[in-house]
Order: sequence, then C-alpha cells, then structure tokens
Amino acid sequence: MNILITGAAGMLGRKLAQRLVRTGELGGRTIQRLTLVDVVTPEAPAGFAGETHARAADISDPSQAPRLIANRPDMVFHLAAIVSGEAEMDFDKGYRINLDGTRFLFKAIRAEAAKAPYRPRVVFTSSIAVFGAPFPEKIDDEFFTTPLTSYGTQKAIGELLLADYSRRGIFDGIGLRLPTICIRPGKPNKAASGFFSNILREPLAGQEAVLPVSEDVRHWHASPRAAVEFFMRAATMDLTQLGARRNLTLPGYSATVGEQIAALTRVAGAKAAALIRREPDAKIEAIVAGWPRNFDARRAVALGFRAESSFDEIIRAHIDDELGGRL
Amino acid sequence: MNILITGAAGMLGRKLAQRLVRTGELGGRTIQRLTLVDVVTPEAPAGFAGETHARAADISDPSQAPRLIANRPDMVFHLAAIVSGEAEMDFDKGYRINLDGTRFLFKAIRAEAAKAPYRPRVVFTSSIAVFGAPFPEKIDDEFFTTPLTSYGTQKAIGELLLADYSRRGIFDGIGLRLPTICIRPGKPNKAASGFFSNILREPLAGQEAVLPVSEDVRHWHASPRAAVEFFMRAATMDLTQLGARRNLTLPGYSATVGEQIAALTRVAGAKAAALIRREPDAKIEAIVAGWPRNFDARRAVALGFRAESSFDEIIRAHIDDELGGRL
Repeated sequence: MNILITGAAGMLGRKLAQRLVRTGELGGRTIQRLTLVDVVTPEAPAGFAGETHARAADISDPSQAPRLIANRPDMVFHLAAIVSGEAEMDFDKGYRINLDGTRFLFKAIRAEAAKAPYRPRVVFTSSIAVFGAPFPEKIDDEFFTTPLTSYGTQKAIGELLLADYSRRGIFDGIGLRLPTICIRPGKPNKAASGFFSNILREPLAGQEAVLPVSEDVRHWHASPRAAVEFFMRAATMDLTQLGARRNLTLPGYSATVGEQIAALTRVAGAKAAALIRREPDAKIEAIVAGWPRNFDARRAVALGFRAESSFDEIIRAHIDDELGGRL
Repeated sequence: MNILITGAAGMLGRKLAQRLVRTGELGGRTIQRLTLVDVVTPEAPAGFAGETHARAADISDPSQAPRLIANRPDMVFHLAAIVSGEAEMDFDKGYRINLDGTRFLFKAIRAEAAKAPYRPRVVFTSSIAVFGAPFPEKIDDEFFTTPLTSYGTQKAIGELLLADYSRRGIFDGIGLRLPTICIRPGKPNKAASGFFSNILREPLAGQEAVLPVSEDVRHWHASPRAAVEFFMRAATMDLTQLGARRNLTLPGYSATVGEQIAALTRVAGAKAAALIRREPDAKIEAIVAGWPRNFDARRAVALGFRAESSFDEIIRAHIDDELGGRL
C-alpha cells in the first residue's frame, strides 16, 4: 500500500501519518510507502518500516500534482488547504490552493489512469463551513450548502468535483465535513474559532485564556483523535455504500461554551476554569453567530463514523494525547 | 445601458436579445449597446436603435473574457454552456466551457473592477440538473444539490462561485435554475429530454413524433416565453432581497406526459395527438427516472417570477410565438 498525504505538515496531517505508521497497515494491506507533502517539508514520522518521501510542494503549481501521482498512490488523503480566515483575506490564494490545487490533483489522477488502469481512493477533507446561516437548529444530511465564506465555497466546490470524478469511476472518493477540531494542540492562534480550544487547552496547562463570546454560544466539535479515526474509517470502509452522494457530515458533539467550561471544571477543577477571562468581542460574536450549532449526522453514524459523546471525553483525549495523561 | 449576452446564438439567447430590442430599455434605462457572443457569430436582432456588436468567441479561451468585459457591460446575461448530453460525453469540453469559461468571465469582472469602480449585474443560467435522485416528490428551496451529471456539477459550481463573488461585492449576481424549456422550437434533437417538446411541436406541425417513455413520467416545464421573462425579472428586480442565497429554483409547471398529450388534444384535437408514436426506449426511461419531477419554488414565486399554470398555456405560447398564432 502506497499512501499520499497532502497537508502532511498540518496538525491533522502529522497525527494521521503517525497513526498510519503506528498501525503499519491499512485495510489489511501493509503500508510500504508514505509520501508526505506540504508547502513546507513535513517531518517524517519515526519508526516506520517502509519508505517515507517527505517533500515540499505547492499544489497550486500545475506541475506538482502529476509528480505526486506519478508513483500511483493507492490512497490519497487530501488535507492541504488554506484555512478559513486566510482564504477570506486572500481571495486569490484561497482559490488557487483550495480550488485549483484540488482540481490539479483530481486531474492528475485522471491523466495517470489514462496511461494504465488506476483508480485510487481519495479522502477529501471538507468542512461544516459549506453551510451558512440561516439554518435549522440541527442541520440534517440533505440541507443545502450555502457557504458564507470563500473557504466554504471552495470546499463545497471540492465536494462537487469529488462526487463527479467518483461517479465517473476516475477515483473512489469520499468527502468528510469535519466538525471544528477541539482541543487543537499548540499555541493560541488568531482564527475566529480559536477560543473554543484556547479556553480548555490553556487552563489545562495552567495558563490564562480569553473567552470573547457569551457562554450560550453553541458549536459542533470533535477531538483530533476522533478526526484521525474518521480518516481511518474513510480509508477502509466500503465506499459503494455511499452511492453517488460522496460527501458526509461527520458526527460531532454539540456543546455550548458554558458546557465546555463545566466539563473543564469536572475534569480539571474550578481553579482551571477560573483561568478563563471574559473579554467580549462583538466582531467575533458576529462571526460565530453565522456558524452551525448542531447537526443530525445520521448517515455518517450509520456508516460507522464515531465522535466523542461528551466534552469530558474530548478533554480527556487531549490530556492523554498531548499532556502524557497527566495534568 | 450596455448589455452583454453570452450564448447569444442559442435559442434562449436569441429570444432574449429580441425581447431586449423590442423593449429598448431595461429597468427604465435605454439600451445603448448590445454585445452578442457565442461560439458562432450570433445574428444581430433587427430594429435595434443602439449599437450591436455580434462576435464569435470561445469563452474557454482565457484571453476572451477580459475583452468582453473591457467595455464594461452594466448587465451580463451568461447563457453560454455545453449542454447536458455533450458535457457528459466530453468531460474536458464540459469543464472547459461550463466551469473554466464561467470562472474566466467572473475573474474578468473582478480584474476590470480593480482598474476603476465597476459592479455589473450578472444573470447566470443554472439548471434543475443540479439536483440528482433520490429526491422528494416535490423538491423545496433548501434541498441539497447532488448532481448526477457533469453538466449539473458544473452548474452547481457556477452557482457557488456566483454567490461568493456576489457576497464579496465583485458583482451583483443571480442564478436561475431553469425548468426544462418546452416547447423548444426547431428540429427534433437527440437530447434525452427532447421528446418532451417533440411530442407537441411535431404534431402541431402535422408531423409524427416518437414518445420513448411511458405516459406517467412527470417532469417540470416552462415555455421559452416564460424563460425570457425570468431573465427580464432577474435583470430588473432588487437583488438585495436575495441576501447571500443568490440561486433560485424557478417556477414551472409539473405535468405527466399523459397530461401533456391531453393538453395537446384539447388545443389541437385528437388528430394531432394521434401523430405520437409509442416506441419505448429503456435507456431513455432510465435516464429520465433520475430527473426531478416537481418543485415547490416558493422563494422565486414570492420574488415575482411567474411560469405557466397549465400545459394548454404552454402549447398556446408556442402557437403564438412560433406558428404565427395559427395551427
């Protein structure tokens, strides 16, 4: 099994590569080669028995995708993307990476298949940003995609291309609309959604964190650990079950900020929760008001995708995976 | 008022140009210039007081869109497209014209606006092909787009781009999901949907027609006349009413083939209806089974879009507009 991961230097890309190396196989087939690509050279995970090719490549350069596909990966995890905030600030860059980059990759697979039979599986990371307000309190599997950001637009277009290429048998694709990943490890960042992670991760490390919205803001979350298992499920399940509808809203856990803080208090004590400083920010409140709050991800659940079922569990996953199991 | 029509040599493009010339104004502003573009040079409509520029241009050639936009049309009717059957047969051509061509046009508007303030209105023709089975008997305004053809995929992508460019204020866009246009004038063609028109148009002209499906097949129709009025409404209405959701399923009339034939009998007599020859074609039956049958186009109706409310009316529109009012 020969695997390509784009966006492999990102948080999820790194965790996915580590997970693949730890298991050593995918769907019963030994992983022989791992190609890791990102705009900066990704780190090769330690302890892999097979070959690792880690390289820097700009997927919006049309010459790159054919090179990545030339060694015929059986499995393509396409995680590379310009994130929401940056795609909104830089219109051209967002379309170049998120739309053109994705299309170049899909086209390269088609061109490779024209030389000799080839039909890899493609796991595409989409996002709940494909949905835009107004929407019902709980968004079901047949609700329409009306993104309110260029990022959401680019992801929705990627979904459509993925479905059409899959329908035509060019590759076997699945698109995963990830919930907001919480608790994101690392430093606080400026993403409008950053506070969902900051208010847990920082207090768990004994640091102050800023909460810019009210406690009744509700959102849709899954841990990095759950996200990696989504990828594993998508990589190994029978995709004929999807029919022509190749894009799935994944399960998550819907919680208010108040419920997040209550879980933090239960797991780490009132002292941790006291490190959260309220600094209401009208601009962030306004952005967050346009975000989905809850989903009925029935289809993905029926297909065996699983997320956490409490915020305590999400916090404990972070303590296990990032803090060595200790506070 | 300076107007650009792409796809101006097509049936709807021609009728729209004639309609604009007949009225001479749009939203109270005199039409001074009409630029008509298609892959073949469109015919200039007779009797226009202003300037007509009719030219052949391939919109999938990136150098063309900037030229079309250089004279800063106030209104762009973007009708140019490879039709469903051809886009399905020729993957590259469909994506080149329907996706790249649309994107080049949108990008050219953005580039022009970067030189000096410019924000035209863009009326984009989408299609009910953005929907793919399974769907409810009546598709509502919030049902998701899961196209089962490359054409439907390309139109759904055009809709997403239109909404994002409009949201960013680059242009003021509206996407119109046209019903199947019936009765299409001209010769019978090989489009899988051709029979919906053939079984009326040919008998009305005293000719035999072939019906390849059963009489209980239900579909969604509007006349060419209604389609032109959709464009006029889209060109003159206040688009702020749309908010961020720039794409509309238009009203139509839902009828079974049996109901079409009953209307033909009422309008033109049993002798006309007797010219329909039943030749069941399993392949066409299968294609048509995946097509939408009925819509609840509530939003467009509330915004003032109107279609016919009986098939008799659709047939009479054809007799008036194509047969000089006589059978």
